[in-house]
Amino acid sequence: MQSEMRKLLQAVRDGEVSVDDALLQIKTQPFVDLGFARVDLHRRVRQGSAEVIYGASKTPDQIRAIVQTMLDNAQDRVIITRMSPAAAEELRESFALHYWPEARFALVGDLPEADGIGTVVVAAAGTSDLPVAEEAALTAEALGNRVTRVYDVGVAGLHRLLAEKERIMTASVIVAVAGMEGALASVVGGLADCPVIAVPTSVGYGASFGGLSALLAMLNSCASGVSVVNIDNGFGAGYLAGMINHMEAKK
Amino acid sequence: MQSEMRKLLQAVRDGEVSVDDALLQIKTQPFVDLGFARVDLHRRVRQGSAEVIYGASKTPDQIRAIVQTMLDNAQDRVIITRMSPAAAEELRESFALHYWPEARFALVGDLPEADGIGTVVVAAAGTSDLPVAEEAALTAEALGNRVTRVYDVGVAGLHRLLAEKERIMTASVIVAVAGMEGALASVVGGLADCPVIAVPTSVGYGASFGGLSALLAMLNSCASGVSVVNIDNGFGAGYLAGMINHMEAKK
Amino acid sequence: MQSEMRKLLQAVRDGEVSVDDALLQIKTQPFVDLGFARVDLHRRVRQGSAEVIYGASKTPDQIRAIVQTMLDNAQDRVIITRMSPAAAEELRESFALHYWPEARFALVGDLPEADGIGTVVVAAAGTSDLPVAEEAALTAEALGNRVTRVYDVGVAGLHRLLAEKERIMTASVIVAVAGMEGALASVVGGLADCPVIAVPTSVGYGASFGGLSALLAMLNSCASGVSVVNIDNGFGAGYLAGMINHMEAKK
Amino acid sequence: MQSEMRKLLQAVRDGEVSVDDALLQIKTQPFVDLGFARVDLHRRVRQGSAEVIYGASKTPDQIRAIVQTMLDNAQDRVIITRMSPAAAEELRESFALHYWPEARFALVGDLPEADGIGTVVVAAAGTSDLPVAEEAALTAEALGNRVTRVYDVGVAGLHRLLAEKERIMTASVIVAVAGMEGALASVVGGLADCPVIAVPTSVGYGASFGGLSALLAMLNSCASGVSVVNIDNGFGAGYLAGMINHMEAKK
Amino acid sequence: MQSEMRKLLQAVRDGEVSVDDALLQIKTQPFVDLGFARVDLHRRVRQGSAEVIYGASKTPDQIRAIVQTMLDNAQDRVIITRMSPAAAEELRESFALHYWPEARFALVGDLPEADGIGTVVVAAAGTSDLPVAEEAALTAEALGNRVTRVYDVGVAGLHRLLAEKERIMTASVIVAVAGMEGALASVVGGLADCPVIAVPTSVGYGASFGGLSALLAMLNSCASGVSVVNIDNGFGAGYLAGMINHMEAKK
Amino acid sequence: MQSEMRKLLQAVRDGEVSVDDALLQIKTQPFVDLGFARVDLHRRVRQGSAEVIYGASKTPDQIRAIVQTMLDNAQDRVIITRMSPAAAEELRESFALHYWPEARFALVGDLPEADGIGTVVVAAAGTSDLPVAEEAALTAEALGNRVTRVYDVGVAGLHRLLAEKERIMTASVIVAVAGMEGALASVVGGLADCPVIAVPTSVGYGASFGGLSALLAMLNSCASGVSVVNIDNGFGAGYLAGMINHMEAKK
Amino acid sequence: MQSEMRKLLQAVRDGEVSVDDALLQIKTQPFVDLGFARVDLHRRVRQGSAEVIYGASKTPDQIRAIVQTMLDNAQDRVIITRMSPAAAEELRESFALHYWPEARFALVGDLPEADGIGTVVVAAAGTSDLPVAEEAALTAEALGNRVTRVYDVGVAGLHRLLAEKERIMTASVIVAVAGMEGALASVVGGLADCPVIAVPTSVGYGASFGGLSALLAMLNSCASGVSVVNIDNGFGAGYLAGMINHMEAKK
Amino acid sequence: MQSEMRKLLQAVRDGEVSVDDALLQIKTQPFVDLGFARVDLHRRVRQGSAEVIYGASKTPDQIRAIVQTMLDNAQDRVIITRMSPAAAEELRESFALHYWPEARFALVGDLPEADGIGTVVVAAAGTSDLPVAEEAALTAEALGNRVTRVYDVGVAGLHRLLAEKERIMTASVIVAVAGMEGALASVVGGLADCPVIAVPTSVGYGASFGGLSALLAMLNSCASGVSVVNIDNGFGAGYLAGMINHMEAKK
Repeated sequence: MQSEMRKLLQAVRDGEVSVDDALLQIKTQPFVDLGFARVDLHRRVRQGSAEVIYGASKTPDQIRAIVQTMLDNAQDRVIITRMSPAAAEELRESFALHYWPEARFALVGDLPEADGIGTVVVAAAGTSDLPVAEEAALTAEALGNRVTRVYDVGVAGLHRLLAEKERIMTASVIVAVAGMEGALASVVGGLADCPVIAVPTSVGYGASFGGLSALLAMLNSCASGVSVVNIDNGFGAGYLAGMINHMEAKK
Repeated sequence: MQSEMRKLLQAVRDGEVSVDDALLQIKTQPFVDLGFARVDLHRRVRQGSAEVIYGASKTPDQIRAIVQTMLDNAQDRVIITRMSPAAAEELRESFALHYWPEARFALVGDLPEADGIGTVVVAAAGTSDLPVAEEAALTAEALGNRVTRVYDVGVAGLHRLLAEKERIMTASVIVAVAGMEGALASVVGGLADCPVIAVPTSVGYGASFGGLSALLAMLNSCASGVSVVNIDNGFGAGYLAGMINHMEAKK
Repeated sequence: MQSEMRKLLQAVRDGEVSVDDALLQIKTQPFVDLGFARVDLHRRVRQGSAEVIYGASKTPDQIRAIVQTMLDNAQDRVIITRMSPAAAEELRESFALHYWPEARFALVGDLPEADGIGTVVVAAAGTSDLPVAEEAALTAEALGNRVTRVYDVGVAGLHRLLAEKERIMTASVIVAVAGMEGALASVVGGLADCPVIAVPTSVGYGASFGGLSALLAMLNSCASGVSVVNIDNGFGAGYLAGMINHMEAKK
Repeated sequence: MQSEMRKLLQAVRDGEVSVDDALLQIKTQPFVDLGFARVDLHRRVRQGSAEVIYGASKTPDQIRAIVQTMLDNAQDRVIITRMSPAAAEELRESFALHYWPEARFALVGDLPEADGIGTVVVAAAGTSDLPVAEEAALTAEALGNRVTRVYDVGVAGLHRLLAEKERIMTASVIVAVAGMEGALASVVGGLADCPVIAVPTSVGYGASFGGLSALLAMLNSCASGVSVVNIDNGFGAGYLAGMINHMEAKK
Repeated sequence: MQSEMRKLLQAVRDGEVSVDDALLQIKTQPFVDLGFARVDLHRRVRQGSAEVIYGASKTPDQIRAIVQTMLDNAQDRVIITRMSPAAAEELRESFALHYWPEARFALVGDLPEADGIGTVVVAAAGTSDLPVAEEAALTAEALGNRVTRVYDVGVAGLHRLLAEKERIMTASVIVAVAGMEGALASVVGGLADCPVIAVPTSVGYGASFGGLSALLAMLNSCASGVSVVNIDNGFGAGYLAGMINHMEAKK
Repeated sequence: MQSEMRKLLQAVRDGEVSVDDALLQIKTQPFVDLGFARVDLHRRVRQGSAEVIYGASKTPDQIRAIVQTMLDNAQDRVIITRMSPAAAEELRESFALHYWPEARFALVGDLPEADGIGTVVVAAAGTSDLPVAEEAALTAEALGNRVTRVYDVGVAGLHRLLAEKERIMTASVIVAVAGMEGALASVVGGLADCPVIAVPTSVGYGASFGGLSALLAMLNSCASGVSVVNIDNGFGAGYLAGMINHMEAKK
Repeated sequence: MQSEMRKLLQAVRDGEVSVDDALLQIKTQPFVDLGFARVDLHRRVRQGSAEVIYGASKTPDQIRAIVQTMLDNAQDRVIITRMSPAAAEELRESFALHYWPEARFALVGDLPEADGIGTVVVAAAGTSDLPVAEEAALTAEALGNRVTRVYDVGVAGLHRLLAEKERIMTASVIVAVAGMEGALASVVGGLADCPVIAVPTSVGYGASFGGLSALLAMLNSCASGVSVVNIDNGFGAGYLAGMINHMEAKK
Repeated sequence: MQSEMRKLLQAVRDGEVSVDDALLQIKTQPFVDLGFARVDLHRRVRQGSAEVIYGASKTPDQIRAIVQTMLDNAQDRVIITRMSPAAAEELRESFALHYWPEARFALVGDLPEADGIGTVVVAAAGTSDLPVAEEAALTAEALGNRVTRVYDVGVAGLHRLLAEKERIMTASVIVAVAGMEGALASVVGGLADCPVIAVPTSVGYGASFGGLSALLAMLNSCASGVSVVNIDNGFGAGYLAGMINHMEAKK
């Protein structure tokens, strides 16, 4: 890929290819085809952040190849989500890898400085919601956000949540993580005056139906400013929170 | 029916029927068969409250026949739920009828004195939930309970609910009525130390799926002491609340 | 209410009530109880925007009373959603009311100047999605945002959407409105580098199941930066879009 | 925590902190933050019973830490639900632990004297429902209730249930546990004149859909006085039964 | 059609068509094609009963044409289900029609003598279930069965059902009709020693989900000998009951 | 139990207990309470067949105790369904046990002579449906029915089914077993003129949703005479088929 | 639009715009923006057939504007689906319109000559399925296909379907339309050796759940060569059938 | 079987059996009954392709017997789908077997020459969809089609898909494989002018509900020419694609 790019740029320099044509070529082939995956190299420019690898359904070898392709193309930080400890162990031999087993979250490269508008608060209802909450928090941190964790603040013990009222009311963006009845999103949404990203989790049993109950409750929230991502999608919430928390830098 | 009973008792007096046989007969035919319905006359003795007529699927004539049979058999108070204003108008010609149109609730006879353990609090999340909440409140009142209404206290404006904290914490039983995300039950359940009967309502749109979201949320409540009745079943909640509020009188 | 507030403030001035106590009182009773509703007067301070009235289940008289209470308490702009044309007609007699029948959206007071970070783009897949899209667009405008409408850009005719690529790639926030298969959110999410708020609509038939298909598709979007609100909830999306578009002003 | 409380109280004694401020502090921090969990110490006062640990998703070490914190704070009895036999084995080394493997239920401390209004009857439809029924029965016993077990009384063999009619008709509260078609709740609800708490179980196959059929049937019960808790939630039912059975003591 | 058949038979008599070929022709075209419907004339021979017309989606003219075709082809009795009163009124001008408005059931021709094995019992849980129950009862009667109706015997008032124990235990086949929790099928199935055909009805509200709850409960019945037909399918149950009640005549 | 019964009968003989009282006692305690189960001993008289043990959720010891109690009480044949091979191996040490591993079906005692009205046909759509089909066939055989198996006759290869048309058209009762689209029941129901008991199976993948698709298709069958049992409930179908096939003997 | 295109082409002729630029312009703006809709004019070239108007949610004025735009742009035939008779009446004043009320299908212009590979067979299970079947048949005819209708051939009367075996086995493509259990698709799929497009309909009641049962059954068809479109989507099936029936012409 | 066929043909030759009778016999028994399966030998003639074995629920021995029967009856190519690697290993000892482990797809015999109308394009959204995509591609190749694979072209990175626009627009038939939101089918359907067969996959988590979200989205596709097969049914899509791609050869 690099050599192809070099050839292209040399051709531009030599006047064999016009600037416009070169631009077009760059724009329409901004990926490396590894056979099993097409690694997006221009995404950072296009979308303002590095490619993220969904590790759940990939072998360590596949992940290694994608990471290596990225590093070869000048990306200095790669996020890998839902990676098993075993895969992390293997990859550690090839890269400087940080790994958080509870969240099954890995980072090649170092955490960046936090530089967003304010603080992203990640609130979680119960102890069992922590893996998802941590995936959200680590994603936001890996994308350059200051993150405050407010855990075990389920609405059935309202005083625990009210004790954190200050942090909630001064947050820039809030990620509200809850399973079972998913009421945390509505209560937090009512207290806060910032966007709230609700993450239903599959925590629960019986009529929680794998997170469906929490999902429906969050979608029906009567609090304004609340939107919802997929069940257990901590990454998606952390990513969006980071994006919102960097709104001012965009202009 | 009355004449049959009289004949039976005379037969007992005359020694033609043994006391035991008479008892058996009384126990196994404790209803009047009107053809379209079997009116239960012993329920008051057996279950401690008057028969209740579910008015939704009955003609005014059918309701009148059932009410008359009850009054003829020494019941002094009859509840009719889900009755249309038109039907109420018709029945008013035959009986002294109280009718609450918002709750579609009627009472033949007068409201009794309140005599339970304490106060039944009926809390409702939004204005649209009032018909169901009123059905619950009126049912409890018709069964002899003191009722306090706490309306428009949805969790998205938590300060409205917290302003009623005193009433909630001193209630004997609470009926929590909410549609949409149904979070009121969990928050009230966490604040109170008494039984909470959650009533999901069909209020909402889209992913509320006719009350399913609120129902599931309430079933998944992580607060202890919360149980759930059918969607929009204000009567069932008021009835159960009244039953619990009269526990001490039972011994 | 006003007189109560005046009395309180005079008591403060007279030293009868401490500043702290006064503050506490203000904080804990920030609403007027109209019986059928508790009108929130502090929400603007607390959450940065005016109270919004959900008109669908309220009578014109109820809406009038709430609007009047707000105007009496120094709010200069009131949004009413899901209001029927008949109700709008009635309210017009009492207030200077703007009404958009397609979106069933009303505004008492004038549209404010747009002052957010950038432009909110509202994209809609088909003609039938317009009522929901307009509710989103009008909400955002009523909350002070510049809005660009990009309609009839369903993914089955991709060139229609690509023709609007420029607007999509320079948006500050995007609201993507679609029924049926709901694919617009994913495609827009892949093109844009800003937050995308997906609104599933109940447009469709058969296996669209009242918007369920679009909702599920949007929740499963593999594009990053996408979150979802309830089916047909144009208001919620417009409100959140406006909130995100005003992030920079918050600090 | 204890030392902090002591310091606070000394400050009160020394006049450094006013009684009101102390009260406030006590009220707003009534928990110990263990990092992974916030242990509620005031719940007993607030809600009339000890904290209960949901053991399913916690490690033995986490459970041990929470139990120890409670014992250190003057709680003399701790309930642990859904704890594996292996975890019970480990905890036994640290505490005097009672463990019932079928119900996966543990108690640190001894069963209290029964002192409620009357008897809690736990009725179960089939042999497979026993783990849930036992969780309900043990919970009620651990909270000071006299419990009568009536097992294998499914409605398909009605004479088995009718043979227990006496116990059912004299119960103070009934917990009705059933999977499959869940009809036990309705039949028991029709026989009894006390509150019936229905617990659907996930027992069954095919169209039982993990307890959904029993849940729906119970919610639709046409018997008055029946309310429902989550599928397999024996604890919730036992807890609520105990609460209702102690109504008279509350005044 | 008749002339075609006559021609065919004459051809057989004249030796122009072999018996085998004639048989084949008869077997493979046993219907009259009316354009909008293919009227089955051999069904009586093939399946032992007359064709039944599902009236719900047909115009009076279409129904008339089908009935006439049948009468022309020697069928002396035609059942029409789900026919509106208006359509019945129109058809009455053409045929000797019996019509039962509650069940929306019509019969051209007279009810036959009852001649099955024994008695078909149709049991219904509530007053609202009567239309479906009557459809079942009338169908069975129209197919030559003695039918006993046992109505308003829902399980929540068990004594009403037990008062009919004798009839239930001596039935040949039982049709059990119930909405809401559908428990009647299980209790009847446990009492009886004959086949029980369960008919869920769409009676109920909220979590009855249009009969789904009753349907699931009936499918999960733990009583042996119970099978289920579609929601509100009184005809199907009555037809099958009649078929079973005529088993002995078949040999 | 036996001794109790003997004592009772001696008391009758000696005139100490009246015949009526004895009858009552027999009727109301017709089971042995083993603690974990109440073994029904009168069912044979009451329902015309032996008790059946659902083996899936019982230990070999529990099964052994129930079987022994039955044999001690003069039952000469016991059916055990859904029993694992390992449990069968253990029980073989105590009883003369027949075991069919594919159907996980066991019989203590010998298969009876077949003596019903005619032949029960068990038809199965595919090879994967055989375990359920065999459970149905063996159940019918164990209850004294002649059974014909017609397997691998799914409707997508209609000629396979039509090749068995003769058997289907002369059957007394048919059990139709199918997963996936479940169309076999409708096609067989259209060909046959006897009751058809449809058994949906959980065979399939994707949108078969564990048998739900087949279940719904069968419930919607437009063929008359078809009823449905639970998913994979071969036993229930075989039991009901046997009951119907013995109708004539009942009178 | 036409003038714009003319200007563009003149500019090309005059050398003011290069051929490539012109091509690009043509490719990227192939629609007329009517405000409420973007009319696609290049679709015929791009996809081989005229634009189709989904009439259900459009006013007669909107439909007229779109039709006119198309006719102005050299399209000689416009299909309008799901149009009400009233709208058809209005449009008839402006255009030469064919309208089939049962199928709510309209055609501006004349039916073309049929010129595909062979015959498209549209098979429908019952009389109630005809509106959907006709929508499919008319769509295929309007797109130039010879269509054979085979109606009222539901599988419960298999001989009706087998009587049409010849037509089915010689079809080029088959559209199989059925509600309720949807078995027609599987049986036809087993008989035919051509592509079968299955259309579930919302015909039925109870557990047909608005066509869900038929949809699931068709998706689970064990016959090869069967694919499925949305419930009631006769247009989609007819369109695809026509596309397949014109495969040979494409090369 | 072969000997039976020989006997039959000899009888024809000897004039003992008429040609017509022989034809009939051949037509009505075109399978070998192996006990556990009826092997269809005439399908190739009847449906234009070899029998396919669904390997998932069969033992290696069963598969071997079916394959052997087919080879014995002059079939030169047998497809086995969903076969485990272990079973493949065993069968390799008996037959010349090609096996693709990712797709769990086997072929006895060699891949045929490709001879259809054009090229079948198999497009897949993500890496995790490859097993299903490969099953589709290999099936099409085994049935004599030229196949182009276009993988990892999910719509969230639209440029990846647009880079393959050429292949998509020149395809003869397209199989679109996607999990999660399933939007690929709509976007491809909008770009292409050939039939698109959509295959939802069970790839995803949370609200993907095992492929349900993708399935619903695909059924609701607003692109014309799209039809859908069961979740993960790569074989069905490849088979149908091959059938469509051979349309011209049929005449």
